[in-house]
Amino acid sequence: MRAVGVVVEYNPFHNGHYYHIQESRKVTEADLVVAVMSGNFLQRGEPALVSKWARTKMALEGGADIVIELPYVFATQKAEVFAFGAVSLLHALEVDSICFGSENGDIYSFQNTLKEMKARKGSFDQFIKQALEEGKSYPRATSDAFHALQFVDSAVDLSQPNNILGFHYVEAVDKLGSRIQPFTIQRTKAGYHDQHIADQHIASATSIRSSLFSERTNLEEIQNVIPDTTYSHLLSYKKSFGMFHHWENYYAYFKYKLLTSTPEELRQIYEVEEGLENRLLQNITSAATFKEFMEKIKTKRYTWTRLQRLCVHILTNTSKSLMRENSEYPTYIRLLGTSLAGQEYLNSIKKKVAIPFVSRLASFSNEQVMLDIKASNVYASCLNEPYRSNMIKSEFSNPPIRYDQNNKQFL
Amino acid sequence: MRAVGVVVEYNPFHNGHYYHIQESRKVTEADLVVAVMSGNFLQRGEPALVSKWARTKMALEGGADIVIELPYVFATQKAEVFAFGAVSLLHALEVDSICFGSENGDIYSFQNTLKEMKARKGSFDQFIKQALEEGKSYPRATSDAFHALQFVDSAVDLSQPNNILGFHYVEAVDKLGSRIQPFTIQRTKAGYHDQHIADQHIASATSIRSSLFSERTNLEEIQNVIPDTTYSHLLSYKKSFGMFHHWENYYAYFKYKLLTSTPEELRQIYEVEEGLENRLLQNITSAATFKEFMEKIKTKRYTWTRLQRLCVHILTNTSKSLMRENSEYPTYIRLLGTSLAGQEYLNSIKKKVAIPFVSRLASFSNEQVMLDIKASNVYASCLNEPYRSNMIKSEFSNPPIRYDQNNKQFL
Repeated sequence: MRAVGVVVEYNPFHNGHYYHIQESRKVTEADLVVAVMSGNFLQRGEPALVSKWARTKMALEGGADIVIELPYVFATQKAEVFAFGAVSLLHALEVDSICFGSENGDIYSFQNTLKEMKARKGSFDQFIKQALEEGKSYPRATSDAFHALQFVDSAVDLSQPNNILGFHYVEAVDKLGSRIQPFTIQRTKAGYHDQHIADQHIASATSIRSSLFSERTNLEEIQNVIPDTTYSHLLSYKKSFGMFHHWENYYAYFKYKLLTSTPEELRQIYEVEEGLENRLLQNITSAATFKEFMEKIKTKRYTWTRLQRLCVHILTNTSKSLMRENSEYPTYIRLLGTSLAGQEYLNSIKKKVAIPFVSRLASFSNEQVMLDIKASNVYASCLNEPYRSNMIKSEFSNPPIRYDQNNKQFL
Repeated sequence: MRAVGVVVEYNPFHNGHYYHIQESRKVTEADLVVAVMSGNFLQRGEPALVSKWARTKMALEGGADIVIELPYVFATQKAEVFAFGAVSLLHALEVDSICFGSENGDIYSFQNTLKEMKARKGSFDQFIKQALEEGKSYPRATSDAFHALQFVDSAVDLSQPNNILGFHYVEAVDKLGSRIQPFTIQRTKAGYHDQHIADQHIASATSIRSSLFSERTNLEEIQNVIPDTTYSHLLSYKKSFGMFHHWENYYAYFKYKLLTSTPEELRQIYEVEEGLENRLLQNITSAATFKEFMEKIKTKRYTWTRLQRLCVHILTNTSKSLMRENSEYPTYIRLLGTSLAGQEYLNSIKKKVAIPFVSRLASFSNEQVMLDIKASNVYASCLNEPYRSNMIKSEFSNPPIRYDQNNKQFL
């Protein structure tokens, strides 16, 4: 069986994701799709709209055959580390190809850009270093470096968010010396950052979320741009828990955490650098909402997502030392769900995989997993009892979700 | 002017406290009453029903002339440390006497007991040590020691909560070599731990709180046992903030804090000893309420209040090292309120007092104060915005409350 890997967040799963899965199968001629999906906290430093379990169901019904959790140590990091963690898992799972959406759409551009960057690594790194010292953000510095160093005409525009991720997937494949073959599909219908649902059937997850959280929203508004299966999972999540998860739901805890921490304690937290702890403490008391807080601490030097990720690490009490010691390589494969075909594939490769598979958390523990557990504890904290306790307990006892893709039902 | 000191929590101020103030003036022939009052967290390891500011107003209207905050490092400790901190402040404030309520009621019993205990310190300490090793709680061990060592017939019964506190006041006066003269008034009308309002006009604060938090309660029920002034402050607090503070209001934060801490991090917290961190972590997930949690972790070895205090330290993220380095002696005098007479008294002694007076937090900082600030931040955390932010801000900017006792009005 040929497998294609995809790296996803599905926040929530929408028609564009469905299209991505279909196209990935087609262009790579794969029999099945292995999705590495962020857990409850995402790369942009935000809680996922609904839990990883609900999103796993959406993924399986949307055509994924295997859903693996991208551990917290990778999921909440800048593109380079995020991509390396995800591709490492795909590599361990013996997929034949990886297929990602990008603004560029031409895989040779990515490969040429990587080639040139490796050839001119010294001057590239030097440029980045200097740009950072001038107070530029990392994405800005990278993009400027490309222009300044006059890369090949076909160089990928690394100011585009999906190009950045894609570039790092290709880079990770190269770093790992993996036989994974990279493919890309051009994203056309919706920009990653679009705030409004512009098209009838395809909309970005950002615009869908923004619609879900707007005051006058109703779920029907997004029915056109998500599969029916996603729609019904969203409905039932809202019915069960009374909410979709949003940073504002965690702000009370975040504020509590900051207001009970000394500057010294905050400096132990991952990504709290260069005196940021004082900036955070100076602004927390007067900010009544998370948005207000973010606007107060925002500077040119740091991107919004970099600061949001830092806030997630504070919320989850994640230290520099734990992150640094555990973000080198994935140490386990957390299986969230499979289709019947996915299960068959796993059975066929299982013996060859060097990293341990984890089906139930209760039976496995290491530091990387502990960080996921803390993240799940925090994710549940905005729910009322008994939902909060139940979600925390189920995280340990839940077996992977099984889906019969032929009869379209969960087992 | 002759001043009598009292050590209080006023949670809330009731008729028994009013009687205590009147009697204290009478028996000590004092012109004014200096109250050292716990801040927002109390000796039994609980949040105060209403903020220290509301309780200061109750105290001033109830006859106190000066209200000083007992710092967190003393207020949330076992009787010995609590008493030493409070008496140290009274000593610094040059009071002539101290007057406390006790079950015993005879000051000579306290003095004789102390004398004998000092004379037989070696065997006393030895007995206590052994009893603790056998798994007895500290109060139980102390009380047993008295019986076993056959103290004088008139020895104070140190299984009674007010006797214990009183004993440690007398002991602190002795330790400080202070000229403060101790007095005691017998408590007759209500037991400290009484759960129900038994008498028409005097009831314990415990029974008043239990009545306030019972489901079918209304404020009128307690009108008979508290002054009208307390009644109106309680009414207005409830109206402003929609609540009286209770451990359950903080449980969500407490749970969050435990679930984002490693055992190692918990061991840094004050009073987390002997593997208690594992017991806490094992029981937190499944407990939906604070009460349920406490019942799960309770053992014979530790008193309920000892465990509650430990929980307060976890909630406020108070480390062993900070508490140990800062609980030797008060390093500031935080003035919460004065009557006109109280102000006059303060003016007359101010120059002689070696510890700095703090009227506004914004203008003073040290480690002991930082612990109070954290405690206030936590205390406010259960309020909705904007009340939460406002309470935190006002803690820094509030000047002491001034009360004109002649015209019965705040200035």
